[in-house]
Amino acid sequence: MPAISGRGQKAYDSPIRTLIPFADAAEKRGTEVIYLNIGQPDIETPQNALAAVKNYDDRVIKYAPALGNTSYREKLPEYYRRFGIDVAPDDIMITTGASEAILLTMLSCLDEGDEIIVPEPFYAIYNGFSNIAKVKIVPLLCTVDDGYKLPQPADFERVITKRTQAIFICNPNNPTGCLYSERALQELAVLVKRHDLFLIADEVYREFCYDGQEFFSILNLPGLEKNAVVADSISKRYSACGARIGSLVTRNAEVISAAVKYARYRLSPPGLGQILAEATIDTPPAYMAEVVAEYDRRRVALYERLRKMPGVVSYRPGGAFYNFVQLPIDDSDRFCKWLLTDFSYHGTTVMLSPGTGFYATPGLGKNEVRIAYVLNVKDLNRAMDVLEAALEEYLKGRGERIETDR
Amino acid sequence: MPAISGRGQKAYDSPIRTLIPFADAAEKRGTEVIYLNIGQPDIETPQNALAAVKNYDDRVIKYAPALGNTSYREKLPEYYRRFGIDVAPDDIMITTGASEAILLTMLSCLDEGDEIIVPEPFYAIYNGFSNIAKVKIVPLLCTVDDGYKLPQPADFERVITKRTQAIFICNPNNPTGCLYSERALQELAVLVKRHDLFLIADEVYREFCYDGQEFFSILNLPGLEKNAVVADSISKRYSACGARIGSLVTRNAEVISAAVKYARYRLSPPGLGQILAEATIDTPPAYMAEVVAEYDRRRVALYERLRKMPGVVSYRPGGAFYNFVQLPIDDSDRFCKWLLTDFSYHGTTVMLSPGTGFYATPGLGKNEVRIAYVLNVKDLNRAMDVLEAALEEYLKGRGERIETDR
Repeated sequence: MPAISGRGQKAYDSPIRTLIPFADAAEKRGTEVIYLNIGQPDIETPQNALAAVKNYDDRVIKYAPALGNTSYREKLPEYYRRFGIDVAPDDIMITTGASEAILLTMLSCLDEGDEIIVPEPFYAIYNGFSNIAKVKIVPLLCTVDDGYKLPQPADFERVITKRTQAIFICNPNNPTGCLYSERALQELAVLVKRHDLFLIADEVYREFCYDGQEFFSILNLPGLEKNAVVADSISKRYSACGARIGSLVTRNAEVISAAVKYARYRLSPPGLGQILAEATIDTPPAYMAEVVAEYDRRRVALYERLRKMPGVVSYRPGGAFYNFVQLPIDDSDRFCKWLLTDFSYHGTTVMLSPGTGFYATPGLGKNEVRIAYVLNVKDLNRAMDVLEAALEEYLKGRGERIETDR
Repeated sequence: MPAISGRGQKAYDSPIRTLIPFADAAEKRGTEVIYLNIGQPDIETPQNALAAVKNYDDRVIKYAPALGNTSYREKLPEYYRRFGIDVAPDDIMITTGASEAILLTMLSCLDEGDEIIVPEPFYAIYNGFSNIAKVKIVPLLCTVDDGYKLPQPADFERVITKRTQAIFICNPNNPTGCLYSERALQELAVLVKRHDLFLIADEVYREFCYDGQEFFSILNLPGLEKNAVVADSISKRYSACGARIGSLVTRNAEVISAAVKYARYRLSPPGLGQILAEATIDTPPAYMAEVVAEYDRRRVALYERLRKMPGVVSYRPGGAFYNFVQLPIDDSDRFCKWLLTDFSYHGTTVMLSPGTGFYATPGLGKNEVRIAYVLNVKDLNRAMDVLEAALEEYLKGRGERIETDR
């Protein structure tokens, strides 16, 4: 029997994977599991977009161009203009989700062994793409104490080496929910320009900004036209995760022309998903206003519960739909597993993402979890009842004392 | 301005790309271009499959599991059983086209620097994936003289080195149209087993076999259960290229478990495409019978025209929908370009794929082109009128004499 590849054996695997069998087993035992571990919204996909798929009347599902359907690329600038982002169809490549945009950007902008600075905690899957592209992620620590703010330019400067080719941010941030300010981005831009780096941003949560704060795109940083590359997706904003439609947006034509060479290998992005995606641009603004208002209610409800729990350190996230929270525990993997294997509260438990999965630096995240507020307020409150009772029992069982100084 | 990566600059690009602007220019001049260069069938996607998408009534387009929808994976064995292939849902991973199945197989089965033997001419895009995976394609020559038959085991043996980890075939073959016999595959199996290699097959043209010949899958080679890995797709058989749904099929659980780690980075295969793909399995058999009969008519019509052209060496392909043909030319890139820039016949010209793009060995394919018979017989005949007139004028212009000994 031939052996699989060494890289296949060692390939990055999401730590959350190991919890899934325990969640399945809990359900089999009759325990209800409230899933707060994944970014799968429960919000309905816009009806006009679903209707566009139903009304699709071409009788052959043909290959799209590798860059994506021309009609969709010509319409997307209209969407970006709503955020004051002025891009042309030629600046846009349609991708199979933001995932593909990230991989193609890494391959196009970085060579093997090049370094990419990423504030941590960060979305775990970046590890997978950096492994395939063989680029080195250099993490830069953010902490709950200042709401996981973007590190200062001096902090970035400190980790820049000869091999640094890019800075990669996610804004609003997954997993922290931090919305980076225009000022912080302008300050970062100076550094990026001085070192002639690429600035790559995952902006898939663009719509989800709260407390009256406005989103600011790296595509609007003056002087950074050739440095800025955005990975985008309709998955979150239009609750269409399964459509697998994203985009790579940059005014650097060389990046697009390298990325499209790679894109040609997979021939075209999904055809039916593109029909849906193009129609989302005509979704009435009321849809998004209501979606954001709903997430805001959840965000506030979740934060209000978390801040009252003894020993829990949280902050009020300004964007996305995650809260990254410190719990009075010392092994988040064990705690999240214990929730599924050993605990229930009135027949219910909760699945959370251990913080460890979001750090490249070993040892970090052991007292943190990510909570995705992708469920309605009522279910979120039930989940928080579970978490509150769980923390009490978990700590009692281990004879620990909950610090209540905050 | 930051420089893009060296690999991005050097990334494999399909040579046919350089011809597209010339085809566009020809159309702008008012010349009709008959496209025989791509494998995009004109056949209708099955209506029941399109209807399944229209009837889809889930109100949220959710992430599918990384392995693909369970219902689809559970139904696919029914499809494979029609070819006498006995596989279980656990042997199947749904992919974003066969393209993704090939990349994930390379990453999972081969390490950087490992060698993979591929009979040439071969589907050009394999070069792209082998570049990303950093594996070395070792080509093994097939020729028109014996109908591009699978090389003998001794030929494979000759190029096996310590780094050889896999043999990769496409059956029925793109670009040659050769259908490999069961006997040839059984002989190859002995070698594969002796050297404990992976045998990887792109079997996306499985349905398209002619002259009463039957398709034989590598999944049916006894003793090779852990060696055989198939990349598959619904694109060709159900004329659904744009759905981007394929599969990776193997009874080697370690390969699946490595591949799914990579697959998790992109979260899930396209959701709407999977709805369509699952429904294709219930397509009435009459659909496929008529499709194959239609391709057969085209195949015969095309072959009959080619064999009568002076200086043209063709063979009657047994599968797929391509004919790889020797023309009395010495620079297929130049000839294919000339067809678009300098020639028309009654206002019409034809776009062909230069043979050079299908060889890894430099210098080969200069007198060959690939013709995809994805158009009806009438248009194929018009295209052959063009080709016949074109060859005459091209050779006359260059003062060459057409050899007519064959």
